[in-house]
Amino acid sequence: MTECISGNETEMKKSLIGVIGGVGPYAGLDFMQKIFGNTQASKDQDHLDCMLASCPSVINDRTEFLLNGGENPAGGMFESARRLHKAGVEYAVVACNTAHSHPIFDPFSRMVRESLPGFTVVNMLETCAAFVKENLDITHIGLLATRGTYKSRVYHEYFKKEDGFVLIEPEEQGQGKIHEAVYSGQFGIKVHQPVKPQAKNSIIYEIYRLAERGAEAVILGCTELPLAVEARDFSLPILDPGLITARKLIALTAPEKLLNAPQN
Amino acid sequence: MTECISGNETEMKKSLIGVIGGVGPYAGLDFMQKIFGNTQASKDQDHLDCMLASCPSVINDRTEFLLNGGENPAGGMFESARRLHKAGVEYAVVACNTAHSHPIFDPFSRMVRESLPGFTVVNMLETCAAFVKENLDITHIGLLATRGTYKSRVYHEYFKKEDGFVLIEPEEQGQGKIHEAVYSGQFGIKVHQPVKPQAKNSIIYEIYRLAERGAEAVILGCTELPLAVEARDFSLPILDPGLITARKLIALTAPEKLLNAPQN
Repeated sequence: MTECISGNETEMKKSLIGVIGGVGPYAGLDFMQKIFGNTQASKDQDHLDCMLASCPSVINDRTEFLLNGGENPAGGMFESARRLHKAGVEYAVVACNTAHSHPIFDPFSRMVRESLPGFTVVNMLETCAAFVKENLDITHIGLLATRGTYKSRVYHEYFKKEDGFVLIEPEEQGQGKIHEAVYSGQFGIKVHQPVKPQAKNSIIYEIYRLAERGAEAVILGCTELPLAVEARDFSLPILDPGLITARKLIALTAPEKLLNAPQN
Repeated sequence: MTECISGNETEMKKSLIGVIGGVGPYAGLDFMQKIFGNTQASKDQDHLDCMLASCPSVINDRTEFLLNGGENPAGGMFESARRLHKAGVEYAVVACNTAHSHPIFDPFSRMVRESLPGFTVVNMLETCAAFVKENLDITHIGLLATRGTYKSRVYHEYFKKEDGFVLIEPEEQGQGKIHEAVYSGQFGIKVHQPVKPQAKNSIIYEIYRLAERGAEAVILGCTELPLAVEARDFSLPILDPGLITARKLIALTAPEKLLNAPQN
């Protein structure tokens, strides 16, 4: 039987995709699922080769660092990048919105550039902003997110005023509703799957409310929100940065396998 | 800010767990989810450090190989093991039932033993059989699986007659029903999430039918079946080899974090 076995590295036909997950763990899995779900595949072997590093124990809380300082999570994120690089990954992504804030992402990117040759990190929020510029002729973007994301202002760093973007956030009460929809012990998405109507309804209401206030598209700026709503149920574009970036990674490494219609 | 950044490998406090996935891709994700779901964690940083290699492009179909020959999937599985080993993984598992058949798993284990020092593969079906021996005083075990698994007889290799085990398989019509519940384009679990009642009902019926025919416990011998039924809804033990092995990996690497009650 031995002659039939081959473990030759050259048999890996495509670039290996890596996901830096663990921030949080379920968001990393969800990102992998978006890659699988958007790949044209009729059998296991058609799927893209991917690796996930879910090593949260050494990655400090991103929002906590941005608001109160302490150890930069960039170091722990780099540790995951280093592991993926050793395993042969060429294109990677960090599956966390807040981690893309410049005080974290810039030192992380510098360490990667200096130490990991041939390892490209695709920036999820830059990819999302570029997607909007290339595909949608709009300037006013609604942002649904948790309080930490609003406070960190990470989306303002990528959807810049000088590029003509106007970010619209929910009013104070709406911000509270969205935060609850994600975190509530009684009905929050982080705890209750399938998603409870109370969480779903708050999100739907706030999407329409942002539209009323001038949003031409709405970003789901928290990895839990896409679990509650389907983009196709709305008349305005609903943007999931994870989905956009998962599709970008497929387009980069195996464009012929990218499904035409985005699959949530 | 630089002085606050540390990417030091020694900071990884626990053994790194690795999952050889891609066989199929969703089964690998599901295994990771079982690790996360059975870990005592109140924040991201409490979760265990894990890596998933989902590299299906070089792993041949397991059932096809067992029934018709061709290239042994062991070679591709070893390639994933090699990548995880390079990344620092110490304990790994292969998230596929059929891959545990001796003609595949034996050469795979031999390659790992000879080439990857410090890398331990936990055998999912051996772990499941050991769990039954240690925790349940039973001999007659029902087996729900797809046709390929019955044909491969992989469960008979681990639940041996000489150890007193009697495996009970559904009758021909029942085997067809379970296969349909997994694969049917109209209502199969592989295609339709959340699980359709028609798939769920077939599985529930066949569990009771196996019990009527003498099964004291039923193994869900296909990675899709645990998505359709909850063990706690039945009066006899329902065994999910993936869940049992995910909990075993937590017990091996961070026993203080293993949740008492299994979480599907």
